[in-house]
Amino acid sequence: MATEKEYFKGISKIPYLPSAGPHDVMCFKQYNAEEVLLGRKMEDWLRFSVCYWHTFCGIGADPFGSQTLHRPWNQGTPMESARNRLNAAFEFFNKLGVKYYTFHDRDMAPEGSTLEESNRNLDQLTDLALQLQAQTGVQVLWVTCNLFAHPRYMNGAATNPDSHVLAYAGAQLKKGLDVAKKLGAENFVFWGGREGFYSLLNTDVAAELKHMANFFKMAVRYKEKIGLKCQFLIEPKPKEPCKHQYDYDAMSVIGFLKHYGLDDHFKLNIEPNHTTLAGHSYEHDIVMASAFGMLGSVDSNTGSPDLGWDTDQFPMDTKNTTLVMKAIIEQGGLQPGGLNFDAKVRRESTDLEDLFIAHIGAMDAFARGLRNAVRLTEDGLLPGMVKERYSSFAQGLGQRVEEGTATLEDMEAYIKQNGEPKVTSGKQEKYESIFNQYI
Amino acid sequence: MATEKEYFKGISKIPYLPSAGPHDVMCFKQYNAEEVLLGRKMEDWLRFSVCYWHTFCGIGADPFGSQTLHRPWNQGTPMESARNRLNAAFEFFNKLGVKYYTFHDRDMAPEGSTLEESNRNLDQLTDLALQLQAQTGVQVLWVTCNLFAHPRYMNGAATNPDSHVLAYAGAQLKKGLDVAKKLGAENFVFWGGREGFYSLLNTDVAAELKHMANFFKMAVRYKEKIGLKCQFLIEPKPKEPCKHQYDYDAMSVIGFLKHYGLDDHFKLNIEPNHTTLAGHSYEHDIVMASAFGMLGSVDSNTGSPDLGWDTDQFPMDTKNTTLVMKAIIEQGGLQPGGLNFDAKVRRESTDLEDLFIAHIGAMDAFARGLRNAVRLTEDGLLPGMVKERYSSFAQGLGQRVEEGTATLEDMEAYIKQNGEPKVTSGKQEKYESIFNQYI
Amino acid sequence: MATEKEYFKGISKIPYLPSAGPHDVMCFKQYNAEEVLLGRKMEDWLRFSVCYWHTFCGIGADPFGSQTLHRPWNQGTPMESARNRLNAAFEFFNKLGVKYYTFHDRDMAPEGSTLEESNRNLDQLTDLALQLQAQTGVQVLWVTCNLFAHPRYMNGAATNPDSHVLAYAGAQLKKGLDVAKKLGAENFVFWGGREGFYSLLNTDVAAELKHMANFFKMAVRYKEKIGLKCQFLIEPKPKEPCKHQYDYDAMSVIGFLKHYGLDDHFKLNIEPNHTTLAGHSYEHDIVMASAFGMLGSVDSNTGSPDLGWDTDQFPMDTKNTTLVMKAIIEQGGLQPGGLNFDAKVRRESTDLEDLFIAHIGAMDAFARGLRNAVRLTEDGLLPGMVKERYSSFAQGLGQRVEEGTATLEDMEAYIKQNGEPKVTSGKQEKYESIFNQYI
Amino acid sequence: MATEKEYFKGISKIPYLPSAGPHDVMCFKQYNAEEVLLGRKMEDWLRFSVCYWHTFCGIGADPFGSQTLHRPWNQGTPMESARNRLNAAFEFFNKLGVKYYTFHDRDMAPEGSTLEESNRNLDQLTDLALQLQAQTGVQVLWVTCNLFAHPRYMNGAATNPDSHVLAYAGAQLKKGLDVAKKLGAENFVFWGGREGFYSLLNTDVAAELKHMANFFKMAVRYKEKIGLKCQFLIEPKPKEPCKHQYDYDAMSVIGFLKHYGLDDHFKLNIEPNHTTLAGHSYEHDIVMASAFGMLGSVDSNTGSPDLGWDTDQFPMDTKNTTLVMKAIIEQGGLQPGGLNFDAKVRRESTDLEDLFIAHIGAMDAFARGLRNAVRLTEDGLLPGMVKERYSSFAQGLGQRVEEGTATLEDMEAYIKQNGEPKVTSGKQEKYESIFNQYI
Repeated sequence: MATEKEYFKGISKIPYLPSAGPHDVMCFKQYNAEEVLLGRKMEDWLRFSVCYWHTFCGIGADPFGSQTLHRPWNQGTPMESARNRLNAAFEFFNKLGVKYYTFHDRDMAPEGSTLEESNRNLDQLTDLALQLQAQTGVQVLWVTCNLFAHPRYMNGAATNPDSHVLAYAGAQLKKGLDVAKKLGAENFVFWGGREGFYSLLNTDVAAELKHMANFFKMAVRYKEKIGLKCQFLIEPKPKEPCKHQYDYDAMSVIGFLKHYGLDDHFKLNIEPNHTTLAGHSYEHDIVMASAFGMLGSVDSNTGSPDLGWDTDQFPMDTKNTTLVMKAIIEQGGLQPGGLNFDAKVRRESTDLEDLFIAHIGAMDAFARGLRNAVRLTEDGLLPGMVKERYSSFAQGLGQRVEEGTATLEDMEAYIKQNGEPKVTSGKQEKYESIFNQYI
Repeated sequence: MATEKEYFKGISKIPYLPSAGPHDVMCFKQYNAEEVLLGRKMEDWLRFSVCYWHTFCGIGADPFGSQTLHRPWNQGTPMESARNRLNAAFEFFNKLGVKYYTFHDRDMAPEGSTLEESNRNLDQLTDLALQLQAQTGVQVLWVTCNLFAHPRYMNGAATNPDSHVLAYAGAQLKKGLDVAKKLGAENFVFWGGREGFYSLLNTDVAAELKHMANFFKMAVRYKEKIGLKCQFLIEPKPKEPCKHQYDYDAMSVIGFLKHYGLDDHFKLNIEPNHTTLAGHSYEHDIVMASAFGMLGSVDSNTGSPDLGWDTDQFPMDTKNTTLVMKAIIEQGGLQPGGLNFDAKVRRESTDLEDLFIAHIGAMDAFARGLRNAVRLTEDGLLPGMVKERYSSFAQGLGQRVEEGTATLEDMEAYIKQNGEPKVTSGKQEKYESIFNQYI
Repeated sequence: MATEKEYFKGISKIPYLPSAGPHDVMCFKQYNAEEVLLGRKMEDWLRFSVCYWHTFCGIGADPFGSQTLHRPWNQGTPMESARNRLNAAFEFFNKLGVKYYTFHDRDMAPEGSTLEESNRNLDQLTDLALQLQAQTGVQVLWVTCNLFAHPRYMNGAATNPDSHVLAYAGAQLKKGLDVAKKLGAENFVFWGGREGFYSLLNTDVAAELKHMANFFKMAVRYKEKIGLKCQFLIEPKPKEPCKHQYDYDAMSVIGFLKHYGLDDHFKLNIEPNHTTLAGHSYEHDIVMASAFGMLGSVDSNTGSPDLGWDTDQFPMDTKNTTLVMKAIIEQGGLQPGGLNFDAKVRRESTDLEDLFIAHIGAMDAFARGLRNAVRLTEDGLLPGMVKERYSSFAQGLGQRVEEGTATLEDMEAYIKQNGEPKVTSGKQEKYESIFNQYI
Repeated sequence: MATEKEYFKGISKIPYLPSAGPHDVMCFKQYNAEEVLLGRKMEDWLRFSVCYWHTFCGIGADPFGSQTLHRPWNQGTPMESARNRLNAAFEFFNKLGVKYYTFHDRDMAPEGSTLEESNRNLDQLTDLALQLQAQTGVQVLWVTCNLFAHPRYMNGAATNPDSHVLAYAGAQLKKGLDVAKKLGAENFVFWGGREGFYSLLNTDVAAELKHMANFFKMAVRYKEKIGLKCQFLIEPKPKEPCKHQYDYDAMSVIGFLKHYGLDDHFKLNIEPNHTTLAGHSYEHDIVMASAFGMLGSVDSNTGSPDLGWDTDQFPMDTKNTTLVMKAIIEQGGLQPGGLNFDAKVRRESTDLEDLFIAHIGAMDAFARGLRNAVRLTEDGLLPGMVKERYSSFAQGLGQRVEEGTATLEDMEAYIKQNGEPKVTSGKQEKYESIFNQYI
């Protein structure tokens, strides 16, 4: 990379300087990639990934305002710009010290006027990406196809009422899967931003769900055909841009996958800012997906609980990161998934350095969360209290409930013999107070 | 019933008086049980049911205020009160002209100090109910067990951390199923008000879900053993009283049922006020459950979109009732389910006549909704527009998508040959404007 | 206008054809401008206005998708495009039969590279507008300055931490007021989309509020200086684009205006889609603003109660339009305000005719709402019930409460003499049922 | 108090033991009353208060379940029970080491069958309270009248459509003010739980607002007459139990007070769980009330952002407590207000010790928040960044804006001379990252 232009001038590789004063936010104070916790390096627990769309393609426009972010790599023809952007991205990954990235097909290479041209653009850019990956060791956490931004997808991609559009989505997906294989992506994500409806009056829900299921089945068949080894992931979101998206939340997707017999082929990519929009607590879908054995990866961001849309902010709340890392530790890690920063600097954060500040702040918040969750786990106090709370299921009638052999008649007999159960405090405030001692 | 005390004095059987002036709300202006629409009587489309808990047990307390409703049937010992209440209920059903009712075991008969005493109480009251059913022809739409109000269930019933409590719930359920058989209930509902959590810190989600599934399996086995023919229904609710209930919404329940292989044995009882609390539109879960073949019954009530808790108001919005009846017509009716008014008069509506006014207003709103939906269906304009919108799936590549035989390679070939699809307006405002002409 | 290009080809002036069948949504079935209700023509009760930004400037982009709407008037240089757009707009007003329009300064004329150039652009376009107004009789309901879209305003306009930006906003506002005078606008609206904060950490709330108040005071002084006669209006919105806007809702603005002594100079422009985002019911801010004598105008649109952002949909719900018109009738009309359609066709509604369909549907919904509210008023039943409900304030102690002369000692004496008040049913369901008979 | 029964057996005065291990939540680890911060003792910054209603009157019922909490002081006749409760309360205050308490009139003494009897009950209990206050040094932070729980207030107290009910509220308030004087309360709170509406259809909003204002004016006059020195406070809440309460949030109350000329006589008592129900962030109303000089006291509790009702949980989130204490430090403290724990143990927290655990956990959370906010303040980094951000208002045109002497003409001239302002990053992520280093 020596011969390329330097985009983030004046910023060298970010050091690990825990002793720096509070005034310096441009160094890691909490994150230390090499530190070993519960037998694994911090970077292996956290598997951070930088997203391409927000960090390199974002321009700071919102529905009420125009572009505020003018990036130095956006110069020249679309293809020149795309090459510059890719070089800038790898400079950023390298200086930040992050080993993974994620991208949509249309982030990396501009859409052409035909499918063939779009594919050629992708071929050229992925050649460069492959070369940069080899030079730096940075890898693809996941690829995804952008099946929502182009006007052709305004009424849906896999769920479009016009099969011609669905065909276009399929053609684009085929190339996306080829790209995933070429670049060695560890996962492939489906986010159905337009797979839902704006009005039930003009929508045949049953037909659309079936088409979406068949679309996924085609993807599975093609993946197997080309020998693509990555994990397929679906990313739930309840709404926005649609009024209602079929992949509303973790349980909606699990219900859909199981109904159509697709659950062996997919896991979930959970984004907390989507979870809260569905009316759940921040960590809910991570915990729930994990309980069903379906947690694949996490889009590590946050929103404001008082806002009703996706703000994709950098996660900075240590309590939240502790809860997330606790769930991840309990399932033994996220591999081959990771913590992808699907987060964008505010449109008012117009300095180039804000990209670094934001990522470092979030990585530090997760490092603190990890350490807290590790102490919780190693100390064993809270886990032990929970285990004790459910201990009645380890023997007797409880055990038979656990095993599925108890009957209602058994239960009636038990109550006739043993009468009323004793009252047991749930002690929520005690759990909360103890938890507070770890954060 | 001639010898019983009359509770609703001065109110005779409610007449069907469409010609009454707007000043009179104590008669049906829209509802006409015998009117035939789409080959079926209005009462068979609507299958209204009065709920026991709100209408006869409600006392008008709320978390910030004490009892406002003093009902004349609540006199004497608990068992005397229960008998009076049952007589009053059948007087109400009869005067209102409704053919179904629903109840919790503990609505009908008071909980005793032991399971045995509770069961004896139930035996006595259901003897009377059976007699009143025979006299009046009123039938049980569904029964349910109250597994949430007693303090023993504060930490859950089927999901309680203490297996002793789960056993109590099982014993109570066994009796509930016996009662359902005795009274010829057409459905049996499970509402898991305490099946969820208040804090994830003290909760083992995976264990609780498994226990809940095993609890349902016991119910299925016992139902089959005693030859109970009714339909099992689960009623989703996202939260309240729990911070989070596992049966969050229709798709959550479908996911749960399919994961545990229970989906052949259950359908859903959808309550729109619960649907809106989960962040969906009023009719969403009815439409979604129907699309998955899982819509069993409807708890016909409403809330205010600006409130975050269950107000269980009487449904009075004709647009909403039209959307509900449209979905019900499209799936050919609700039998053996119905439209149960899980709705309560406001605690400020302290007159006895308010019970009639509220039910009549809601029945009229549904009668209008039914007529609107029938006109929509018979006229065929909107359904035809929707059909046309999806017509590309009737032949060619679209048809192969529909059938599941298309591949991504087919799609790529199609696009290489046919290029970009044409833009097609979704015409939402046109659908809305036309829909408005039917309401 | 005869020599201008016709943009809406094939669409003639929309007729009033109540006898057309339900299939035809391209004619007014309910709206009849000339019909007299309560002594006033329907068009004088409704005073409809078309907004410039959505209807002529909207391109159908959203945060997840690019342009879908390609309008034939957007051709040539920015200034040519602006002229075409203005001609198209007046063609639309004329064919639709609407007498008012609203616009931001930057909708009508493109922003130049300097303030002077922007002002020259405005001068040229407003010359044309004046000419078209004279030709057609269409008038300006209100003008507003766009102080939120340009990047310079990203951190606020009147509340920007940099006084240089505030100065720019002031300079732009001066021209906006000049334009309002030139075009004879009946109102001038302030919408503070960026007047709020994204984070409290970097914000001095007290300073910003004072700057905003001083900004309004400058506007009042300049208005008086140039003899501008129009009504100043503030449009509340709780959030979006800001995380929090100071003009959260009607009461927030009233509190702000009264604190800074500005309440004699401003009224409110209420947008129901903003009201619902603040957690209120659809009609709440209209009723509340009216109760404080501060209701000036209405941005007639709607959103979905299950969405947390501003969708600016065309209002199609007759119940809502009835409630709005009831409040407007009760305060004797909206003059000099009106019902401005701050509403946009969905980005999927790509046909040019969808603009007409949407406006006609909304106008018909308001015509129905007006007729319903008139019947409610003329029949007098509901108003009479409300009057009776408060009748105890017409004499005795109630009257002295009303007049402000009663004391706590009087009240204690009254209760010692009269004891407990009697219980009076609120009869909400009766009110709802009767109301339903008017819609 | 030596001769009284001990209710919290086995619990001695809670020690300050920062060196205790993480397993012990029954001692203060963070809170140290005597520690001096910014020149003031921690207990003077925090001024904690225990509320009577939840902690001593709460029985653990919710709308879906019956009593779970059986307190040993609830024995005997209502008056005996009330005396026991008062003794238990002071034992609790003493062991916990809290110097203030708050109560409703009806918490302390039961409502009698007449006003006179209620007043006599209050006289007797306040005699005892006065004695216990003298013995222990514990004082009344504030008193309030319960004008919402009794059925007579179901349709409102000061806003009831029946003036007889308003008279009852006035008579009760008179006695409440007498009690406040007798016990030396530092504040008097008005919470209008029923001052609002359930339906606009049966409500005359303008009349009700006027009656409420006149009610407050009577209170002011009587307060002045009896020489009561305490601060009057209004506690906003948006909804629940009403569908809509007039005191929706801080700005609504400020608007109301200013409209009726009451703003010199009242400040606000802000409860964050109410703030979030109104759609704001946790700390919003504290910051906003403070910016308007109206922050009087804080009801220190929390809810869950994903729930739409008031859960009144103990505040345990250190980030939130830091933000609250930062605002309180910035206005120089809360005196004569304080931090009242309007919070209840969960109904599942059935052990008597849970009352201590919950209060200690919350006090520790506030102690951490205070220390964080003090370090933020003393370090001066963030405050300095904010000051610098607004520095342009310290001279030139900015200063004239600040002073209110600038004109729009000045601004136009300034821009014509100086052109476009430069872009300045808002640096939100930098502020967040730095803030994180203090918590």
